[in-house]
Amino acid sequence: MPSPERFHGILAPVLTPFRADLAPDAPRLVAHCRRLAAAGVDLAPFGTTGEGNSLSCEEKIELLERLVEAGIGPRRLLPGTGACALPDAVRLTAHAVARGCRGVLLLPPFYYKPVTDDGLFASVAELIERVGRAELRVYLYHIPPVAQVGYSLALVERLVHAYPGVIAGLKDSSGDWSHTLALIERGFDDFRVFSGSETFLLRNLRAGGAGAISATANATPDALVTLYREWRSERADTLQDALERTRAIFQRYPMIAALKAFIAESTHDPEWERVRPPLTPLSAGQRSELFAALREERSRS
Amino acid sequence: MPSPERFHGILAPVLTPFRADLAPDAPRLVAHCRRLAAAGVDLAPFGTTGEGNSLSCEEKIELLERLVEAGIGPRRLLPGTGACALPDAVRLTAHAVARGCRGVLLLPPFYYKPVTDDGLFASVAELIERVGRAELRVYLYHIPPVAQVGYSLALVERLVHAYPGVIAGLKDSSGDWSHTLALIERGFDDFRVFSGSETFLLRNLRAGGAGAISATANATPDALVTLYREWRSERADTLQDALERTRAIFQRYPMIAALKAFIAESTHDPEWERVRPPLTPLSAGQRSELFAALREERSRS
Repeated sequence: MPSPERFHGILAPVLTPFRADLAPDAPRLVAHCRRLAAAGVDLAPFGTTGEGNSLSCEEKIELLERLVEAGIGPRRLLPGTGACALPDAVRLTAHAVARGCRGVLLLPPFYYKPVTDDGLFASVAELIERVGRAELRVYLYHIPPVAQVGYSLALVERLVHAYPGVIAGLKDSSGDWSHTLALIERGFDDFRVFSGSETFLLRNLRAGGAGAISATANATPDALVTLYREWRSERADTLQDALERTRAIFQRYPMIAALKAFIAESTHDPEWERVRPPLTPLSAGQRSELFAALREERSRS
Repeated sequence: MPSPERFHGILAPVLTPFRADLAPDAPRLVAHCRRLAAAGVDLAPFGTTGEGNSLSCEEKIELLERLVEAGIGPRRLLPGTGACALPDAVRLTAHAVARGCRGVLLLPPFYYKPVTDDGLFASVAELIERVGRAELRVYLYHIPPVAQVGYSLALVERLVHAYPGVIAGLKDSSGDWSHTLALIERGFDDFRVFSGSETFLLRNLRAGGAGAISATANATPDALVTLYREWRSERADTLQDALERTRAIFQRYPMIAALKAFIAESTHDPEWERVRPPLTPLSAGQRSELFAALREERSRS
């Protein structure tokens, strides 16, 4: 049975702005989150797109504090709290629960390879036991193209059965629709399967999935929300096609830098272009190309 | 010109023992380091073998404090201080320098893929500038099979030229001897090229390399040190062959768990078997097989 308690719809894996000294820029992050929330998307800070693994635990805790203090509703927040080291994941997850976040997006420990499902199960089980809070809701973050370590179907099943009230969903960034579909078709009770990009958004919703957590929701939240609200309408396929064309433009460049360039341009704030090493910003030439392609796409739609 | 200031010879990437509650076990770590140091190997704690990426920054800082307090000479210490997040790498590196460590072993930020040499250069450059200590000596840790992100030859060259006094060497765990050889043959001034295992130890020394930083040095430090001391002798190839046979036995199993099983057996201390998730210990059957194979090999040598 679907419950309103769990996430459903569109979430933005929120970009993290940095100051000139490369420290996270909390005021700009708050402003960005307010814009996104107003557009109707929920917020997943400290994911891959948010350069979450380029932030220390202390920085993530401080930023989450600042978001909640600024009045961003914690029921709209799904912060990334996975880490290579169990104590870090426990600390971040416990903090997110204490601040009332509706869930956490849990990357598996991603340094050691290969690892077994037994080892990953133990990692998640230890986390849940150590956090020890009934309110904890874990959304598994499956992104093997980047993390190289992922949650197999068998492992997801094992976790759902061991912690049915806690394991609340999964973000599938495998890029493999058949994997997403298999997860949806398992039909775990109230389990929320999100696609990791809008590429599969319409298919996800038609199959009974929960929506998408997509990088481009930072740039074009309205377009994603419109499709989510109108996926049963006649124009759903047209909306889906337009989303895919826009995504394809961003994907010509390193995605995070391209999205930051877009936010810098649309907010007239070049500070937004900054990324933390090891990422690098777009060149001026790449920015011009990106903006020209996006203008052309907008004039078409 | 080779200087005695930089590492040369055999280093053990020190295993990290854990207590029943999975907290690091400092007294057992100190005892293990004393045994290894007495056998003539220098110490590289918090590497891959030391489950370094399963430890939080706070745990690594605390353990390094305990090692130094226990009288382990900091000039024998090459702790792993690389991290995905720049502030973590800066914090760990600054602490190691402040405690007088002769060098640090620097894994590149390993979450984001693909990354450019420009991005990795910026990452190391920021680290060096932020630590800002003339005593800092960085040994690059190149282990693409695990980290998936590595230091290309071009990047090493660029770093050496930008920070000639600081970039002191490299541990090559690529498993690709031609890469190690290419690094040695570049002939950077006093640059120390270590093989990431004993498989290439004799070739490394004959080519003018600095030695090996090898997981099995935890178990058989004497054998590695003997080859290092006698690599010019007639029996060098025989010693190398024996090392490779022993390594091949350990490699039938997950290496870290197998080495811990060995230490548990040889110190009559089953506490040593414990690993942190996502790793898993050997089964009883695997342990028996491992010990039988090692006994057979010992009776042969």
